[in-house]
Amino acid sequence: MLRVAIVGASGYIGGELLRLLHGHPRVTVVAATSDRLAGRRVDGPHPNLRGHTELCFVGHDTLRDIEFDVLLLAAPHRETMGRMAEFLKLAGTVIDLSGDFRLRDPDVYASYYGVTHSAPELIPEFTTGLPEWHRAELATSDRISVPGCMATAGILAVRPLARAGLIEGTVKVDARTGSSGSGVSAGAAGAHAERSGALRVFAPTRHRHEAEIAQATGHTVRMTATGVEAVRGVQVLAHVNLASGVSERDVRSAFRAAYGNEPFVRVVAQRQGLYRLPEPKILTGSNFCDVGFAVSADDGTAVLIGALDNLVKGGAGGAVQCLNVRFGWPERTGLEFTGLHPN
Amino acid sequence: MLRVAIVGASGYIGGELLRLLHGHPRVTVVAATSDRLAGRRVDGPHPNLRGHTELCFVGHDTLRDIEFDVLLLAAPHRETMGRMAEFLKLAGTVIDLSGDFRLRDPDVYASYYGVTHSAPELIPEFTTGLPEWHRAELATSDRISVPGCMATAGILAVRPLARAGLIEGTVKVDARTGSSGSGVSAGAAGAHAERSGALRVFAPTRHRHEAEIAQATGHTVRMTATGVEAVRGVQVLAHVNLASGVSERDVRSAFRAAYGNEPFVRVVAQRQGLYRLPEPKILTGSNFCDVGFAVSADDGTAVLIGALDNLVKGGAGGAVQCLNVRFGWPERTGLEFTGLHPN
Amino acid sequence: MLRVAIVGASGYIGGELLRLLHGHPRVTVVAATSDRLAGRRVDGPHPNLRGHTELCFVGHDTLRDIEFDVLLLAAPHRETMGRMAEFLKLAGTVIDLSGDFRLRDPDVYASYYGVTHSAPELIPEFTTGLPEWHRAELATSDRISVPGCMATAGILAVRPLARAGLIEGTVKVDARTGSSGSGVSAGAAGAHAERSGALRVFAPTRHRHEAEIAQATGHTVRMTATGVEAVRGVQVLAHVNLASGVSERDVRSAFRAAYGNEPFVRVVAQRQGLYRLPEPKILTGSNFCDVGFAVSADDGTAVLIGALDNLVKGGAGGAVQCLNVRFGWPERTGLEFTGLHPN
Amino acid sequence: MLRVAIVGASGYIGGELLRLLHGHPRVTVVAATSDRLAGRRVDGPHPNLRGHTELCFVGHDTLRDIEFDVLLLAAPHRETMGRMAEFLKLAGTVIDLSGDFRLRDPDVYASYYGVTHSAPELIPEFTTGLPEWHRAELATSDRISVPGCMATAGILAVRPLARAGLIEGTVKVDARTGSSGSGVSAGAAGAHAERSGALRVFAPTRHRHEAEIAQATGHTVRMTATGVEAVRGVQVLAHVNLASGVSERDVRSAFRAAYGNEPFVRVVAQRQGLYRLPEPKILTGSNFCDVGFAVSADDGTAVLIGALDNLVKGGAGGAVQCLNVRFGWPERTGLEFTGLHPN
Repeated sequence: MLRVAIVGASGYIGGELLRLLHGHPRVTVVAATSDRLAGRRVDGPHPNLRGHTELCFVGHDTLRDIEFDVLLLAAPHRETMGRMAEFLKLAGTVIDLSGDFRLRDPDVYASYYGVTHSAPELIPEFTTGLPEWHRAELATSDRISVPGCMATAGILAVRPLARAGLIEGTVKVDARTGSSGSGVSAGAAGAHAERSGALRVFAPTRHRHEAEIAQATGHTVRMTATGVEAVRGVQVLAHVNLASGVSERDVRSAFRAAYGNEPFVRVVAQRQGLYRLPEPKILTGSNFCDVGFAVSADDGTAVLIGALDNLVKGGAGGAVQCLNVRFGWPERTGLEFTGLHPN
Repeated sequence: MLRVAIVGASGYIGGELLRLLHGHPRVTVVAATSDRLAGRRVDGPHPNLRGHTELCFVGHDTLRDIEFDVLLLAAPHRETMGRMAEFLKLAGTVIDLSGDFRLRDPDVYASYYGVTHSAPELIPEFTTGLPEWHRAELATSDRISVPGCMATAGILAVRPLARAGLIEGTVKVDARTGSSGSGVSAGAAGAHAERSGALRVFAPTRHRHEAEIAQATGHTVRMTATGVEAVRGVQVLAHVNLASGVSERDVRSAFRAAYGNEPFVRVVAQRQGLYRLPEPKILTGSNFCDVGFAVSADDGTAVLIGALDNLVKGGAGGAVQCLNVRFGWPERTGLEFTGLHPN
Repeated sequence: MLRVAIVGASGYIGGELLRLLHGHPRVTVVAATSDRLAGRRVDGPHPNLRGHTELCFVGHDTLRDIEFDVLLLAAPHRETMGRMAEFLKLAGTVIDLSGDFRLRDPDVYASYYGVTHSAPELIPEFTTGLPEWHRAELATSDRISVPGCMATAGILAVRPLARAGLIEGTVKVDARTGSSGSGVSAGAAGAHAERSGALRVFAPTRHRHEAEIAQATGHTVRMTATGVEAVRGVQVLAHVNLASGVSERDVRSAFRAAYGNEPFVRVVAQRQGLYRLPEPKILTGSNFCDVGFAVSADDGTAVLIGALDNLVKGGAGGAVQCLNVRFGWPERTGLEFTGLHPN
Repeated sequence: MLRVAIVGASGYIGGELLRLLHGHPRVTVVAATSDRLAGRRVDGPHPNLRGHTELCFVGHDTLRDIEFDVLLLAAPHRETMGRMAEFLKLAGTVIDLSGDFRLRDPDVYASYYGVTHSAPELIPEFTTGLPEWHRAELATSDRISVPGCMATAGILAVRPLARAGLIEGTVKVDARTGSSGSGVSAGAAGAHAERSGALRVFAPTRHRHEAEIAQATGHTVRMTATGVEAVRGVQVLAHVNLASGVSERDVRSAFRAAYGNEPFVRVVAQRQGLYRLPEPKILTGSNFCDVGFAVSADDGTAVLIGALDNLVKGGAGGAVQCLNVRFGWPERTGLEFTGLHPN
């Protein structure tokens, strides 16, 4: 059994890592850290784990006294980069879910996160934790940075056409997200009475995930982000201009070529039906990212759509998928849940 | 114009008082207090008032320098009783929306609120702010205590039968409430990701409003309270035992006798239809309390149902209705909104 | 009192017309038609009207025997154009809420509605029922066509910049709508278990309201429409390219110039706060359309945002506002409701 | 591999059976019937199964030409009893999810279902499909009738105390259910705009599941059923009178004795915390039924609470659990999903 430790295990991503790894047949969680809850049972903040585990949180310092093979980091942005040198000493393989090592260019990082990157020399060591586009590198990488939730949906939706040279110009992205993306400590903005039923354009411009999509596609991206009524779920719509002569058939072929054999990406672009395009509603709890498209034949534009569960494929599930790739296990191991309908 | 001051105007009840009094043709709000937000516009925390008022919050101390006729208190439980002597000096008429002067017996208060009442000598001065049952006293009262939101629905649903001697024994109440009842500062329990879609039995026994319903009906009451998915809205179901020989017709007659001429209570007990029984969904924003019933002919039991908007009829609207009664105005003044369907 | 008849009064728009006109001091509803429900009380399908009216539906044929001044049409698209000649004989003033007389060019109509227009000669007689941009014509018009819900939000958000020449090129619109926009008969697609929590991209391209926004702004518009978790509420985001040299200050000035004195349009574009941009959540039941913007200083693009209640400002409320303009009454008459917070 | 056929596979329970059996390592689904959708892929109405199966629906008549070991019946009430004799010829083991063989007494059936039972002679052949209370019989039974969703929650919550003689008199049950309980064809009552945010007391008296709880506990039961805002999820509150001298400790002991070793029942009755009592929100997709209690020490009453996912433990999952018991497999086989938090 592979021994895994989780830093920041009391948050929503941490809880989801615990859920997924509990059901993973090749992994054992040897430590789940939370300074605030050290000594308390993990099924307190994560009540869905009742009856499944007797595990308790430990303080971060405990990690020095425990042996493990892989360290999963679910710590906050900005804090993570300052401690990364320390983390890298603790385990042979480190998978980071923070935003600190996603952007290759420290200047872009500074521009989007508002602080200078404190460990720019470590950035090149990290591989992007998106198996669909980096599977080969991930198989041998010991530093993995999992993309952001909206970035994952956006990259998976846009990159097939971008790589195939089928689109031109700026990509306009409308991203929608549920409330769990704000984490356990959402504060007054996350109070139910304020957040319920909201269509909150919390980032009309310059959301951080915009930079990740731009980096992964080579296009300028302009993205708005809206909080919608949901706990889990991300959906992105990308408005793109097709290159001259590109047909709907070309678009479909590019998606099929990119994802035809992917275990966790389904191309959903049907003519009719309630679920003819990607919809996060039926993805809750699953590791799927559904991608689809609609082409405006008359004017050479298209809408590309991606949907996923931000805590699974857009977070903890993506990390577990990387773990499976890194250790050579079947990629669906521990990630078999299909999603629910209706839900 | 009657001059009104509002204490605790930054909370949800305070905001609703501002909304209703803004539309009230005989009242002007001369002060809205909030020490935290003194100097800031009231349409900051209450964005629905944008374009309707230029009013700004003032600090509590400012009340000493302003003249007004009526003081509306939307301050917290426990804090209110300690300051009531001071409040009573400030205005000829005081309408309190806290829980501190609802229960006539200080021992019952201590039992349900967990603290000794600090101003028991003032309790007898207060009239219960429920016009349907205390209209005559309210017309001349200058100390009014508005009942709790679930209590209002429960009292209006149960009291007609209790007063008519049609029920016996303990009344079992199942109360459901939206998240706005927890107020602006609901904390971690009110975070959207935790509260959304909840069926949270936050008070399986001894909710404070239980004591109010018992006091108003003369029956022992056992009440559970569940937080449901809604921002506004309260619904109570009361399981009662009918006295021997009481028929459905008797029940209907008692409700009609009690509320046939009431401006804000509708008897809703139809044979069929989606809205055949009281439903808070169509009461949002309105001052109605719908009440209804279903009789089990075979065993002499009945279910009584009440529904309302906790911030209106169960709070600010109830207070404005009392104000109308106290000053002899038509009772619907400023409370004309019908509610929405669908909603 | 102005005598009004409503055709199609059993639907959601019909119900909202009844609600608003019930509270309108200068109007009396003399007939509400529904062949299906003729003889039944209007408070059956519209339970929020209980206690407010004893009105019953009448069959359509009854209109020939009743005198009235204004006919409000809430009949389906396609059906309305075929009966318009008849309707015009029935009343001096006709206000149509269907889509049939919104588009000036019958070819565009055919392209978006999939049928040839059956009464193209009547189209030029109609004035667009948007007082913010057609107030003078509306004051003397007896044929008024109220724009679509998403079109209203889109036009109000985009037209100030379009008219001032501040934007260039194609406008990309992302529109979101609640379930009530599908009407009473939404069918399987509208079943709660399927529709709840949805982010359904039901029109990735060529939604009909796209054509209305294009017509009103003179720009090519590409619009996606997504059904979101809400009963009422529309929000549109328009991605635009600013003309060379246009600053945020220019944008703000254009919005202020357009709407500074409007009774039902608020410019909401603040630096911070939960409700710093337009949000339908706080507009439910009100006739406001909030509009706002965010400018990307570095690249000459902007996001324009509009939000409203689709059944009020995007439907029945817009019609009542037109009625007020047409008959010279204060424009807020019968439309005073402020909206609720929290909600 | 055990060969299973599903009758009525296009509905919500049918879809859930397909989901669970797809992940079951010892079962293969050889036929999923739907006359309406014969020849169509099952992942049409059940889009969560995309990428997991190529199965298509077959017509009911096809069952005569296929060999299988177990027949799972997800056909409507009333229709099932008329066809049961035929079904019993088709397979060695029949598991019925309709209501037709749950009640032992045909007169009670007639009273609650409004029709005479057409196959009363078959009723005694069926075992109640609730492993927690009928495990031994189920291990050898070839006719199994799975209880109703609210009945399962109610029986699991009340029976431990009833069997131990710890309660007396009538049990008052408040049951709450999500919209998926109404099935695919919920009609106008299930339209999102009407059902969203509802607190609909659709059965104030005499809901059918009341009779099942009474049968299983030996107590008179009076139950109300309310539709709440959720797609999945059932919660029941049972108000009971404790027998003389029964303490909270006795109650807890009875629950532990009943369920201490159960794989799918957790006793949740903590002093504090957001999830201190059973909550369906964290059970979505899982086969757990959480049960809990709160005792009013002063007056000898208690509230018992049960929560589950109506389509899993209250339907398809319960059926699969019975299958596991019947064929001697570990009871959690194919039912490992833990549930999600937050959700």
